[in-house]
Amino acid sequence: MLELYDTTLRDGNQGEGVSFSVEDKLLIIKALDRLGIHYIEGGYPGSNPKDMEFFKGAKSLQLQQAVVVPFGSTRHPRYQPGEDPNLLALLDTGARTVTIFGKSWELHATDVLRVTAQENIELIESSVRFLVENGREVIYDAEHFFDGYDDQPDYALQTLKAAAQAGARCVVLCDTNGGRLPLEIQEGVRAVIAEIGLPVGIHTHNDAGMGVANAILAVQAGAAHVQGTFNGYGERCGNANLASIIPTLKLKLGIDCISGEGLNQLTETSRLISELANLPHDERQPYVGSSAFAHKGGMHIDAVRKNSRTFEHIDPELVGNEQRILISDQAGKSAILKKIERRYPNYDKNSPEVIALFDRLKEAENEGYQYEAADASFELLTRTLLDGYQPFFDLLGFRVIIEKVKDHGIRSEATIKVMAPDGEVEHTAADGDGPVNALDSALRKALERFYPSLQEVHLTDYKVRVLDTQAGTGAKVRVLIEASDGREYWGTVGVSENIIQASWEALTDSLEYKLYKDSRET
Amino acid sequence: MLELYDTTLRDGNQGEGVSFSVEDKLLIIKALDRLGIHYIEGGYPGSNPKDMEFFKGAKSLQLQQAVVVPFGSTRHPRYQPGEDPNLLALLDTGARTVTIFGKSWELHATDVLRVTAQENIELIESSVRFLVENGREVIYDAEHFFDGYDDQPDYALQTLKAAAQAGARCVVLCDTNGGRLPLEIQEGVRAVIAEIGLPVGIHTHNDAGMGVANAILAVQAGAAHVQGTFNGYGERCGNANLASIIPTLKLKLGIDCISGEGLNQLTETSRLISELANLPHDERQPYVGSSAFAHKGGMHIDAVRKNSRTFEHIDPELVGNEQRILISDQAGKSAILKKIERRYPNYDKNSPEVIALFDRLKEAENEGYQYEAADASFELLTRTLLDGYQPFFDLLGFRVIIEKVKDHGIRSEATIKVMAPDGEVEHTAADGDGPVNALDSALRKALERFYPSLQEVHLTDYKVRVLDTQAGTGAKVRVLIEASDGREYWGTVGVSENIIQASWEALTDSLEYKLYKDSRET
Repeated sequence: MLELYDTTLRDGNQGEGVSFSVEDKLLIIKALDRLGIHYIEGGYPGSNPKDMEFFKGAKSLQLQQAVVVPFGSTRHPRYQPGEDPNLLALLDTGARTVTIFGKSWELHATDVLRVTAQENIELIESSVRFLVENGREVIYDAEHFFDGYDDQPDYALQTLKAAAQAGARCVVLCDTNGGRLPLEIQEGVRAVIAEIGLPVGIHTHNDAGMGVANAILAVQAGAAHVQGTFNGYGERCGNANLASIIPTLKLKLGIDCISGEGLNQLTETSRLISELANLPHDERQPYVGSSAFAHKGGMHIDAVRKNSRTFEHIDPELVGNEQRILISDQAGKSAILKKIERRYPNYDKNSPEVIALFDRLKEAENEGYQYEAADASFELLTRTLLDGYQPFFDLLGFRVIIEKVKDHGIRSEATIKVMAPDGEVEHTAADGDGPVNALDSALRKALERFYPSLQEVHLTDYKVRVLDTQAGTGAKVRVLIEASDGREYWGTVGVSENIIQASWEALTDSLEYKLYKDSRET
Repeated sequence: MLELYDTTLRDGNQGEGVSFSVEDKLLIIKALDRLGIHYIEGGYPGSNPKDMEFFKGAKSLQLQQAVVVPFGSTRHPRYQPGEDPNLLALLDTGARTVTIFGKSWELHATDVLRVTAQENIELIESSVRFLVENGREVIYDAEHFFDGYDDQPDYALQTLKAAAQAGARCVVLCDTNGGRLPLEIQEGVRAVIAEIGLPVGIHTHNDAGMGVANAILAVQAGAAHVQGTFNGYGERCGNANLASIIPTLKLKLGIDCISGEGLNQLTETSRLISELANLPHDERQPYVGSSAFAHKGGMHIDAVRKNSRTFEHIDPELVGNEQRILISDQAGKSAILKKIERRYPNYDKNSPEVIALFDRLKEAENEGYQYEAADASFELLTRTLLDGYQPFFDLLGFRVIIEKVKDHGIRSEATIKVMAPDGEVEHTAADGDGPVNALDSALRKALERFYPSLQEVHLTDYKVRVLDTQAGTGAKVRVLIEASDGREYWGTVGVSENIIQASWEALTDSLEYKLYKDSRET
C-alpha cells in the first residue's frame, strides 16, 4: 500500500503569499478526505497558537479515512522530552499519529542546533521514544537527508537508525533544499531500504524544477509513503505537487493509491485550494490546469479531433478536467445540460433554450463571472432565462458615502430606495463598517419591511478577487458571497470594475435566492 | 560539447496567452545570444507569414554565437520536395541550419497524415535529403518519438535511420505529448545512441510535471543537444524550462554548456521574456523566481543567517538572483534583523529599537498586515520608528460618493484635501471606475501639484484579500498594491474593515515611498 501524505496546510502554508485561516484549513481537510488522502498534516502547534486552535476544530470533523497529523520538531537541547513545550504541544492536540522532524545532516546539527553530532542522535532517539511511550504513532521526517547522505552517508543513516530503534513507524527522507537530482534520490532511497527495516517515505521540493520527478523516482526505487502539497505550494519554489504525483502514480505506474472516483475530483480539489489560498489557479499546471488539455495550434486541433491520443497523454475526464478546443464548445454544453437535467429533462444540446443559456454563460464568463461557487446565482439566471422568473424587489437607486476627516475615524453611510412588486416604495438609510456593509444593512432594512423572513439570512463568507490585477485600482473585481438561513448555505457572485456594484449584485442575488427558495417550499 | 537549443519563439509561442511580435522576437534573440544559447528556433515560416518577415529582420542582427534556425515539417505527401511550399519556405529564409519534424509514431502517420508506415519513412528521407542537397545543416525532430518507441520500437528507430541516412546532422527525440517518465526517456535515449551514429537531442514537455527532469535524465543517458523554452512556455502545460535546465547542467552536473557570465544573466533574461510575453513572471520558478531564495519560516531564517547553505541549494548570485527574507508571522526577530542589518549594522536581537520594531510588527500582523509583498510599507514603517521619518504630505480629509440610479450606470466621485509640509493646502475632486479608482485619481491630482515626479508612478498590481471571511460584508480586508516608476517596483499594504480605508493606506504608502526614494537618490 502506498500512503499519500498531504502537507498543504503546514509546508504549503509556508509558501510566499499563502496564509490559510482556520476555516480554510477545515474546508481543505474535508476535500482532501473526500479525495482519498491518507494523512493530512494540519499544522505546527508548537510554533503557532493559531494551529493549536485548528486542531481543536479538526477533532469534530467526521472524516471518512484521512488521519489529521500535527507536525513538530525533536526536543530542544535545553529540555528533557517530558518538559519540552513542542513535544507537549504535539501530545496536547490529542492526535494519535504525529510527525516530528530531526536533522540528518551534521552541518545542521553543528551550525543550526549547535549540538555535537552525537547529541543530535540522542535528541532524535529520546524525542521519538517519548512520543511512542505516550501511545503515539510516529512518522519521522529526516530533514535534509539527501544533503546529509551526500556529505556523510554513515552519519545520515545513523540518524535514521536512532528514530527506528526508538519506535518510529516510518522514516521520511527529505530533500529539504530541493536541489537534488532524481538519480541521487533513487540511490538514497535504495540505501535506506537496504539498511532500515521500516517503510520509507519521500518528501521533495522543487528548487531545481524536479520535485515531482524526485517523488516518482523514489517510489520506483521502493518508497511507500509520498509527501507533497496541492498546487505545489511551499517555501521558495514549493513542494512536490500532489496534484501531479497522484495521477502519475495511478495512471502511469498503476499504483492503486486512490480510487477512480477520488481521482475524478482532482481538478475540483486543486481549484478549491487555489480559491481558498486566494491565489490565481496555475492554468498551465499538469493534469488540473485549464490549459492542460487545451489545443491551440491548428495542426494539433485537427489531430486531436481525429484521435485525441495523438496529443493527449491521458483522458482528461479521469482527473475531472476537460479537453478544450479553442474553437468548439461541445464539452461546455454537456456540462450545462448535466446541471439542469433534473429540472428540464426534455432539453438536449440543440434545444434553443440550452443554446441561449450557453451563450449567456459564455458571455458572463468572459466578463469574469464564475458559477462554480455561486450555485444560487446560476439557478436565478437559469430560471430567469428559461422560465421568465420575476424578482421579488426592484432597485430604484442607492448612494454610498464614505467620509474621512483628519483625526477622526472613517464613516460609511448608505441610502437606498427599493420597490416591492405591489408598487410600494421604501427609502431608507444605514451606517456600516465599510461601504459594502453599509449598503448591506440599508438593503436589509428596506426589504425586511416587505419580507420579514430575510432576518434569518446571514452572510457566512465574503470574498473579493481582483481580475486582471495589472489594471491597478481600475481593475474588475469578482465578489463571492456565501449566505445561510441556518438550514441551507448558498453562494452568489457579482462582477464589476466597481466593487460596490459587484458586491451589490452578489448581495441582492443572495437575498433574492432566499425569497425564491422560500416561495418554492410553500 | 552540449548544445543548447531554445524554441521559446516557436514552440513557446504556441502556449495559451503567448504571442510575440516581430520586435519582441528580435529583442529575445539578442538576449539569448548574450546568455550563450547555441541555437535559437525563430519560427515556422511555412505556416505563418509573420515568421517569414521575422527571418528577414533576424539576418541583420549581429550575433556573437547563436545560430537562428527556422522550423518546418517534412514535405506534404502531395508534393515532391522541390515543389513543397513548406520546404521551399525553409530555404527562402537563407538560414544555413534548419530544423524539420517528422512522425516517429505509426499512429500519427496513419491517423493524422493518412499515409502508410512506409510512405511516412519515405517522406522523412526525401525531405531531409532535399535540404542537405541544398547545402543546409539539418536538425531532425522526431515528433512523438517516445510514444512511438513504446508502441513499436523497431518502426520508431527506422524513422530515425531514414533521417540519418539522408544526411541529418542530429536527431532530436521528442516527448511531444509530455507524458513520459524519466526512466522511459533514459531507455529510449540509450537505445537510439546504440543504433544511430549521430548526436542525439532531447525535446520534452511538462504534461506530467517532469519536463525538466526528462531533459536532465536524457543528458545523463548521453543526449548531446537539449531543447526547451524560457519560463517553460509552450502548448498545454508547456515545454521543458531552459531557465531550470541550464543552471542544473552547469552547477550540478558540471557540464560547461554556458559561461559563468552567461549564467549570471539567467534571471534577467527570464524576466525580460516574461515582460515581452506580457505575462506575470512566475515567482515560484526555480532559480529565477523572486521566491526561489525567499525564506519565510522563522527557523529557516535563523538557519540561513547562520549558514546560507543550510536552506539554499545554490548561491543565488550565480544565476543573477538574490536571497530574500520575508516578514511573516512565522518569522522572528532574526528575520527583521537580517532585513535591516545593512542600514543599521550595530543593532542586535536585544537592541531596544529592534524590540520596538518587532513588537510593532507583531501587532500589525495581528491586525492583518503582511509585509512579505510590501517591502515599501515595511521600509517606511522602519524609518518612521527608528529615524523619526516625516511624511511628504498630510491628509486633511476625503469623501467618496458612489451613486446608482435605476436604468443608469454607477458613478463614483472622490473629493480630497491634503496639506504639503509648507502648509499649502490642495482641495480637489475626481471621478473613477470605482470608489478606489476615484480616490486614487483625486489623490494624484492633488499631490502632483507639489510633486510632479509622481506622474511617473503607475500601479501595476492591486489585490484584495478578505480576512476572516465569516464576518460577511463587515470583514476586514487587506489591500496589496504594487507600483512602479519604470525603473523600480515596490509593494505596499493597507488593512481595514473599510476597503476604502485599506486602499487609501496602501495608495498613500506607494506614493510616499516614491518621494522618499527620490529624496535618498538626490
